[in-house]
Amino acid sequence: MNKNIRTDLALEVRESFEQDSVEIKGVILKEEFDKKNDIRTSIVEIKDEAGAKAMERDIGKYITIEASKMNNSDEDYNKPLSKTINKYLKTLIENKEYNNVLVVGLGNRDVTPDALGPEVIDNLFITRHIINEFGDEFKSKNKLGNVSAISPGVMAQTGMEAVEIIKGIIKETKPDLIIVVDALASRSVKRLNTTVQLTNTGISPGSGVGNNRKAINKSSTGVDVIAIGVPTVVDAATIVSDTLTQYMEKFNYEENDIYQFINDINENAIFNMFVTPKDIDESIKRISFTISEALNSCFSTIS
Amino acid sequence: MNKNIRTDLALEVRESFEQDSVEIKGVILKEEFDKKNDIRTSIVEIKDEAGAKAMERDIGKYITIEASKMNNSDEDYNKPLSKTINKYLKTLIENKEYNNVLVVGLGNRDVTPDALGPEVIDNLFITRHIINEFGDEFKSKNKLGNVSAISPGVMAQTGMEAVEIIKGIIKETKPDLIIVVDALASRSVKRLNTTVQLTNTGISPGSGVGNNRKAINKSSTGVDVIAIGVPTVVDAATIVSDTLTQYMEKFNYEENDIYQFINDINENAIFNMFVTPKDIDESIKRISFTISEALNSCFSTIS
Amino acid sequence: MNKNIRTDLALEVRESFEQDSVEIKGVILKEEFDKKNDIRTSIVEIKDEAGAKAMERDIGKYITIEASKMNNSDEDYNKPLSKTINKYLKTLIENKEYNNVLVVGLGNRDVTPDALGPEVIDNLFITRHIINEFGDEFKSKNKLGNVSAISPGVMAQTGMEAVEIIKGIIKETKPDLIIVVDALASRSVKRLNTTVQLTNTGISPGSGVGNNRKAINKSSTGVDVIAIGVPTVVDAATIVSDTLTQYMEKFNYEENDIYQFINDINENAIFNMFVTPKDIDESIKRISFTISEALNSCFSTIS
Amino acid sequence: MNKNIRTDLALEVRESFEQDSVEIKGVILKEEFDKKNDIRTSIVEIKDEAGAKAMERDIGKYITIEASKMNNSDEDYNKPLSKTINKYLKTLIENKEYNNVLVVGLGNRDVTPDALGPEVIDNLFITRHIINEFGDEFKSKNKLGNVSAISPGVMAQTGMEAVEIIKGIIKETKPDLIIVVDALASRSVKRLNTTVQLTNTGISPGSGVGNNRKAINKSSTGVDVIAIGVPTVVDAATIVSDTLTQYMEKFNYEENDIYQFINDINENAIFNMFVTPKDIDESIKRISFTISEALNSCFSTIS
Repeated sequence: MNKNIRTDLALEVRESFEQDSVEIKGVILKEEFDKKNDIRTSIVEIKDEAGAKAMERDIGKYITIEASKMNNSDEDYNKPLSKTINKYLKTLIENKEYNNVLVVGLGNRDVTPDALGPEVIDNLFITRHIINEFGDEFKSKNKLGNVSAISPGVMAQTGMEAVEIIKGIIKETKPDLIIVVDALASRSVKRLNTTVQLTNTGISPGSGVGNNRKAINKSSTGVDVIAIGVPTVVDAATIVSDTLTQYMEKFNYEENDIYQFINDINENAIFNMFVTPKDIDESIKRISFTISEALNSCFSTIS
Repeated sequence: MNKNIRTDLALEVRESFEQDSVEIKGVILKEEFDKKNDIRTSIVEIKDEAGAKAMERDIGKYITIEASKMNNSDEDYNKPLSKTINKYLKTLIENKEYNNVLVVGLGNRDVTPDALGPEVIDNLFITRHIINEFGDEFKSKNKLGNVSAISPGVMAQTGMEAVEIIKGIIKETKPDLIIVVDALASRSVKRLNTTVQLTNTGISPGSGVGNNRKAINKSSTGVDVIAIGVPTVVDAATIVSDTLTQYMEKFNYEENDIYQFINDINENAIFNMFVTPKDIDESIKRISFTISEALNSCFSTIS
Repeated sequence: MNKNIRTDLALEVRESFEQDSVEIKGVILKEEFDKKNDIRTSIVEIKDEAGAKAMERDIGKYITIEASKMNNSDEDYNKPLSKTINKYLKTLIENKEYNNVLVVGLGNRDVTPDALGPEVIDNLFITRHIINEFGDEFKSKNKLGNVSAISPGVMAQTGMEAVEIIKGIIKETKPDLIIVVDALASRSVKRLNTTVQLTNTGISPGSGVGNNRKAINKSSTGVDVIAIGVPTVVDAATIVSDTLTQYMEKFNYEENDIYQFINDINENAIFNMFVTPKDIDESIKRISFTISEALNSCFSTIS
Repeated sequence: MNKNIRTDLALEVRESFEQDSVEIKGVILKEEFDKKNDIRTSIVEIKDEAGAKAMERDIGKYITIEASKMNNSDEDYNKPLSKTINKYLKTLIENKEYNNVLVVGLGNRDVTPDALGPEVIDNLFITRHIINEFGDEFKSKNKLGNVSAISPGVMAQTGMEAVEIIKGIIKETKPDLIIVVDALASRSVKRLNTTVQLTNTGISPGSGVGNNRKAINKSSTGVDVIAIGVPTVVDAATIVSDTLTQYMEKFNYEENDIYQFINDINENAIFNMFVTPKDIDESIKRISFTISEALNSCFSTIS
């Protein structure tokens, strides 16, 4: 069934295989659990083409941090979660020395569940212009990473693909690492605002909610790309077909029925709609702050 | 089935009766069609208790303006639509002389589909403070209505019911008409951002998306209340149960199956989610402007 | 000269007396200095009518916290400063038991230096609706104060005085303490975004920038009022006349020249203008967060 | 005196010459007056190096539209003013055929008087992505210009010069015309929100308020650049020195006194401050809409 669903989360693709236990060739799944903070982390590593084909994802690492508490308004939870994000971010950076980091906040500032990227940028500690003014000595003395950032906006606002804007900026400012932050689409309502995905394979903005944007990754930009994503919406067609599937499995009906039905739905224009929680504004505010903190503390020791 | 669905639109309740043609006792349905602008208007008038019971709505007038073009970005469409809203608004005002109008923009400014009310207030021509300063002669000379406005915010932001704030303000500023503007929940995706409902029965804020707020109407405030609503979201549980219903009707299954299934869904917490289009920011911006224009031109001739 | 200047800070009135050392009858001035965090606090207490007349301020306590570092973007500075605000806030609350606190964020959300109040509200922990739902046991178990909040907007947006809206809400929700947060006008550029004034005498919104709003204090509302203010603007006429005064004192000219000149300025409509720093957005964001933290930690132990 | 003042308006430089009537070599000044709408237009054309040196401005055309009514909230005034802007914009475009226009909204969205550029972008009709999807036939059939747009943000937000971002985008999307919209600094309070400057010489962002950004013009970008600017602030040091100058001229003092005094002021850190009106939010909202309308109607006939 995983062909018929739309998700940005590698973990959900992995889960869509009937026997969860089964070994998929070329794919390694590792799990870690922080009991104290109730944070579960799954690392899906796609090693080769076989794994990439099976997972319908690029070769690389996909780290999924699940923190159910992430969605409640407990201030004190921000620190351990941001520490965890910071920790796994560093496993993707490995021991590379990046001297010029461009952070990109994808999404539409004016649509609440899509504003995650821009709001992360708003809380970021920007240093490139300061370093340009005061020089490298100032930089190393203050242990600053060289950080610049942009919220390019969405195509309806700019008429341009995000990747066009980013590639242009790269040519001018020559970053050696791009960190892309974006709101994702999940298959499951349970995952909304409780999950952070980190990957070194970049991102295909809005793919999760049915848009077709060009990918932002090493092959399209020529620069290492780390993507940070949080599922904030579920595609409406997905939620309908998923609940329907549960129903039909319970009453064991034909797959054919479902396929045809999902087409009906799409004609019903549900498929230009997304599903999001009523308190999405509070979630976006809290989570964007947590991710900014993780990035700020990460950058101040990158180089 | 209409007991199981959540909608703020009287028209959708009317439609939920099997034989659309049938005469419902105590309910008069009138239709008008503006072919040139493709604007269809239905006036549902609930005359007595019998009709109120059948419709599960209060006695009063419900005017539903359907303008499919309302949702496309044609600037030129704003004028005829705002004229139409203005015209039917006046049929609710009848020939009463209101001398002090308070406009209330309900909803959460920070959640795009819920921001309709506050954005209408932002475009409103406010006059009460000017009249207080320059007096009634200035008012009549400039044919001004006495207009004040407030966006009280939602309970999660204020800790108060909208109706508590409004009743308090009424005690201080003594308006003789309250106009409440709010984003509504529709049963059907087709209706989103293409429909305006006007009613002289007031409003029960957020009822359409499953919140329980106290009603804002004549009996709760002691003042005439006209409500202007636009459906901007569909309740997620509703969209799932509706599409499922279509499916089951096609394969004629038991109603019992559906009831049980909808309960499953609610346990799945879908029922704290709403469905909204991806370009909701543009729709809210355009429609709030149209409604403001209708109100501005209406007030300047009220008194 | 202090008759000719506009300031919301009692401390600046005190300073406007020629010999700073002199004893003003009915006014007690106390100073405290936190060397570690470089926070200087002055407590001006006006004891009687004589002091009130001399200071042109109401009888009561005026606490001015000066923290020059407040205006730089050092995250770590937020905690000690918010602790200090919290501490002096409690000296104004004394040992009274408030069971229902209404926080009012005055000012215009759409004018950056005036958005302090609304932004403090945005970061506040609101509990009244939760306590209403889960009851007093839940409240005491979680050591919650009963907190509600509102950002009423400015008269140009609502057509109403802020005090009208607040008095109305008081009648409905019966708070026993009102905390008003507002952006103030200072006489001196040095004070902008580096000073917090706390007082138990309430506030006269916008007075500092030349508007005439009705006061929000115990006598106008019947409820205890504590005001928290931060100077974010200097009145343009003030800055011109002050710099001119320096100049003239240096070249010792006639006071008459100045009076006449300041009138010229006002005719030049400078007097509808305010002066604010270019990075006001960052200051407002940081300071509103600090004040919210102080209030949140204060309320959770009020009752 | 004009060496000591900061202004983005060529007209104010022209005016700073003692005898307004005098002929400046290499500079042509033309005036037009629309009596009906009370719109006065001055065209300053700098023909050669001599004029450029005298005016301290680049060779090119500077069109200043003065519309005192622009600053009052009369809705009906939007149309004639936007028509006027459109008309003079076309005199700068001359009969060139531009097929790919990039509009850049400079400034800080979060500082009200600096938000003009981003707010113009928000109201712009963006077509590039539509044309890319539906092709040139669609474009010519609908008489669309190819329009893309970006609000790059300010250096404190991005760590990058606006010109770096723009040059990068140019390399990717190859526009043949750049239109830059920015809030300007005026020397005179009277000019605030009542003046629009159009020029084919580009812009030096923020120069008017004392920042040092790299210029955005043909020589820096390799593309024709038209700049649209509206003065929304006066530099605080300028307002003080100007009012002081009036004063001193009245009492005829030494220029030396003034020079020294202005230095004092700058040390007083007034020079990081700007002056703006209290209702700046309404002005920005109204004027950005007017400029967007002018651009929208201009682009739909460019190519």
